Amino acid sequence: MLRSAAALAVTLLAAGPGFAQTEAPIDPDSLATAHALAEQALESDLAYEITESLTTEVGPRLAGTPHEARARDWAVEMFTELGFENVRVEQFELDLWTRGRSIYEEVAITAPFPQPLYATSLGGAAATPEGGLEAEVVFFDSFDDLLAFDGADDALEGKLVFINDRMVASRTGEGYGWANRKRTRAWHEAEDRGAAGVLIRSVGTSSNRFAHTGMMSFPEGRRPEIPALAVSAPDADQIERIHESGETLRIRLQTYAGWRGEVVSGNVIAEIEGSEAPDEIVIIGAHLDSWDTGTGALDDGAGVGIVTAAARLILESGQRPRRTIRVVLFGAEEVGLVGARAYANARMQDGTIPNHVIGSESDFGAREVYRLSTNVGEHALPFFDQMHVEMQHLGIVRGGNESGGGPDMIPLAFMGVPMARLDQNGEDYFEFHHTPNDTFDKIVPEEMAQNVAAWAMFTWLVADTGLDFRDQPDSAPSE
Amino acid sequence: MLRSAAALAVTLLAAGPGFAQTEAPIDPDSLATAHALAEQALESDLAYEITESLTTEVGPRLAGTPHEARARDWAVEMFTELGFENVRVEQFELDLWTRGRSIYEEVAITAPFPQPLYATSLGGAAATPEGGLEAEVVFFDSFDDLLAFDGADDALEGKLVFINDRMVASRTGEGYGWANRKRTRAWHEAEDRGAAGVLIRSVGTSSNRFAHTGMMSFPEGRRPEIPALAVSAPDADQIERIHESGETLRIRLQTYAGWRGEVVSGNVIAEIEGSEAPDEIVIIGAHLDSWDTGTGALDDGAGVGIVTAAARLILESGQRPRRTIRVVLFGAEEVGLVGARAYANARMQDGTIPNHVIGSESDFGAREVYRLSTNVGEHALPFFDQMHVEMQHLGIVRGGNESGGGPDMIPLAFMGVPMARLDQNGEDYFEFHHTPNDTFDKIVPEEMAQNVAAWAMFTWLVADTGLDFRDQPDSAPSE
Repeated sequence: MLRSAAALAVTLLAAGPGFAQTEAPIDPDSLATAHALAEQALESDLAYEITESLTTEVGPRLAGTPHEARARDWAVEMFTELGFENVRVEQFELDLWTRGRSIYEEVAITAPFPQPLYATSLGGAAATPEGGLEAEVVFFDSFDDLLAFDGADDALEGKLVFINDRMVASRTGEGYGWANRKRTRAWHEAEDRGAAGVLIRSVGTSSNRFAHTGMMSFPEGRRPEIPALAVSAPDADQIERIHESGETLRIRLQTYAGWRGEVVSGNVIAEIEGSEAPDEIVIIGAHLDSWDTGTGALDDGAGVGIVTAAARLILESGQRPRRTIRVVLFGAEEVGLVGARAYANARMQDGTIPNHVIGSESDFGAREVYRLSTNVGEHALPFFDQMHVEMQHLGIVRGGNESGGGPDMIPLAFMGVPMARLDQNGEDYFEFHHTPNDTFDKIVPEEMAQNVAAWAMFTWLVADTGLDFRDQPDSAPSE
Repeated sequence: MLRSAAALAVTLLAAGPGFAQTEAPIDPDSLATAHALAEQALESDLAYEITESLTTEVGPRLAGTPHEARARDWAVEMFTELGFENVRVEQFELDLWTRGRSIYEEVAITAPFPQPLYATSLGGAAATPEGGLEAEVVFFDSFDDLLAFDGADDALEGKLVFINDRMVASRTGEGYGWANRKRTRAWHEAEDRGAAGVLIRSVGTSSNRFAHTGMMSFPEGRRPEIPALAVSAPDADQIERIHESGETLRIRLQTYAGWRGEVVSGNVIAEIEGSEAPDEIVIIGAHLDSWDTGTGALDDGAGVGIVTAAARLILESGQRPRRTIRVVLFGAEEVGLVGARAYANARMQDGTIPNHVIGSESDFGAREVYRLSTNVGEHALPFFDQMHVEMQHLGIVRGGNESGGGPDMIPLAFMGVPMARLDQNGEDYFEFHHTPNDTFDKIVPEEMAQNVAAWAMFTWLVADTGLDFRDQPDSAPSE
C-alpha cells in the first residue's frame, strides 16, 4: 500500500512543473541500489552488534581519558576489519575534566531530615573544599528566578543555590535547550552572587533516581571555583517538599571534580572512496566519547553503530558511489564539540571545506527515524523531496529545510556545508541520556535496523549523485 | 452496573442452601457503615499524605539505626495527632547490620574491559579486606548450577562467584521466592567452596541501573566472612557478555559492610478500642523500617499509610466497632521479621494470642488491591464471600483460603491466628523494590485510595462482627 502510494507520488512529482517525466531528480539505477540497501539493512544486526561491542569492550569513555583512547583503538580496529579505506586518527588537544576519585558522589541532606541524595557533578565543576562542604540551601523555582533575584547583596553568600526547573518530554526533545540553561549557566550566576555551590534538578525527564550530568558553559574561558551538581528528580522532589514545609534545609557535599590539564583526544576517520569524484565528500558522523556514569549506548554508541553499518552496507554492495563517503567518529563531543571544531578547523587550514558536499550526524539515541530534514539550496529540494517519498515505507515524513545536521556538524554548517538530518523519535531519550542508565539493554534491534535503512538510502543517494547541494548564487532568490 | 451485579449476587448467595433470606452473614447496618467508609476512602488523600510525610521527614530507615528510631518517634506523634488510643512503642533488641561508610559502594571490572559497576552489598554481608579485593570471576548461569558444581575442590578458592538467574515479573510477584534463593543462600554455598566473595544479578525485574539489596539468611546463626553483593541488571548483562566472549573477567570491590552489635528497635502500636468485646483484637499492620538505599515508599511506607488511613476513617466515623482494632507498625521487618517475632513472642508470654481474631498486613507496594484472600475456618467463608461481593465495585476478586496474611503476620499465623490479605497488583513492584528507586513519586494517589477503601471495609467488617474466624473443632471436617 505505502509503496504504491509512494510510486504514485513520485509520478506526480516527476510530472509537475519544471520536470518532464524523465527528469525525476534521482537516477533510477541509483534509486534501485538505495532500495536494495534499505532491504538489506532491515535484515541486518550489524549496527546493534557494533554498539554492543563498543559499550561492552570499552564501556564509558569520557573525553580525554584512557577510556576514550581505548575507544579510538577499538574504532580503528573495527573500521579496518570491516574493510573501510583510509582509516586514521586525527588527534587534537583537550583540557581534561574528570569527576575524580569515583562516579559515586557523596551528597546528603543534613537538616532537617538527614538522608542521602543521588547526585552527580556537572562537567567542568570544581571540587568541594577538602573535607567537604555543608551549607544552607536557597531554593529557586526556576533559573529565571535566580536571574531575577534581588535579595540582599550577601543573601547567597556561602549558600547552596538550588534550581528546580522541570523539563518536559517531547518527540523532538524540544524542552532540552530550555532546561539546559540552568545546567550550563547557573554556576556563574550563583558564583557571582557569592554562593558556595549549585545544585539543580536534573535536566532530563526521568523519574528514576539517576542524576543527569552534562557539560556547563564557560563564558570567556572562565572556570568554576564552586561545585555544581545535578540531583535526581526524586531527590529534587524531596528538596522541594522540605522547602515547602518551611524548614531550613542544609546539604552536605563531598566531591573531587576538577580540571586536570591538557591531554590528547582524537577523531577516527574511515572512508569509501568515490568512483568518479573522490574529492567530493559526503560526511556522516557520530561521536565516540560518552559521559562517564553510563556506558554511552544511546549517546552515542547507537550513532556509531548506525552510521558505520550504513556505510558498511554500501561497501559490501559491490557498487561504489560517485563521491567519497567519509565516516567520522568524533572525539570529545560531550565536553563542547571539541573534536568537531578540530575537524572543521583542519579543513579550513587545508582548504577542503568546499569539498564537503553534505553532512549529517546520528546522535539522538536508537529509536526510529521519523523525519528527513535538510539544509540545502532551493534547487536541491526536489532531490530530497523525492528521497523522502522513497523513504516513506520506513515511516518517515518530510521535515523542513533548516536542519543543523547534528551537534558535531555545527562547525561545518557554520562554514556553509549543506546539511541533512534523519530525525529520531526522542520521546524517551531524556529518560536515559547522560545518566548511569544509558546502557545497551535500552536499545531495540529492530529500531536500529530502521535507522540503518534510512541512513543507507540517504548516504548512498547523496554520494551517488552529481547534484551540488549548496545554495546556488545564480539561481532565483527564494523568499 | 457492577453494584447491581453485586447486589444480585448477594441475593443469590443469601438465598442459597443453608441461608434464609434474612441470614446473610454480614449484618446490614454494619455493611452500610462499611460502604460509607469505602466511599469516604475513595475521596481521601490521607494514606498518600502519611506516606509522603514518612518518606520525606524520615526518609530511609534501616532497622536498628537512628533513622528507624526517628520513624518510631514520627509514628507515635502521627498516631497521637490522629486520635488513636493506647499509642505505645514495644521495644526489642536487634543485631545491627549496616553497609558502613556509604550507600554508594565501589565495584568495578578491572579486566578485560575496565569500567565501574553499580552494585550494593546484600544485608548481612561482610566487608572486603581492608584496601579492597580484586579477583577472577567464576560465572554460574544459575544458583542451581552453583549447587551442582563439581569442579576441582579448589576451583572457587579465592574467586568471585557470580550468579546470573533472572527473575520474571508477574502480578503476584510469584518469581520472587525462587529468585531470592541466590540472594539468601549463595554466600554460604560459595564460602563453603572457598570463594572470596559473591556477586549476583539483582533480584527484581528492573532494567534500570539499580542494584536490589535485601537480607541474606544465616543458617544456625552463622555469619558471612565474605562480601556478597548484587549488581544491577545492565551490569549483570555486561558481565554475561564478557563471560560469553571467553575472556577472563576480574572485578574489584571495596565495601565496608558488617555487623555492629546489639541495638534497640521497636514496634509502634495504636488502637481503636472495641465497644463490646475490647479484648478481641483485629490486628492490621505494615512495617516501619525500610532498606537504606531508597526511601521505602512502596516498601513499606505505602502500607503504613494504607492501614493507618483505613483505621483513622473508622475512628472518625463516629461508629465504634465491637472489637478492638490494633494497628501495628512493625520494626525490623526487612532484616528477618524481627519485630513481628518479638510481637508474637510477647503475646505468647502474656497469653493473648487467642484474643487475636484475625490479622492482615499491607506490604506489597501501592498499586490497587485486586483480590481478597483468607485463611479462616470453613464456617467463616460465607462471611468473606459476602465481603468479597461487597468489594466488587473496587475491582476485587475472591482469592483462596490459604493466605499467609503478609510477612509480619507469619509468626501469628504460625500460632493459629486466622488471616486475610488484600492482595495487590505486583506487576511492577519489583521494578522499584529494595533499590534506590523506591521513592514517593512512584505512588499513584488514586491507587492508594482504592487500597484504603478495601482496607476500611475489611477492617470494619471483621471488627464489627461477633463471628469467630478460627477453625471450629466441632464443625464438620472439610476435605
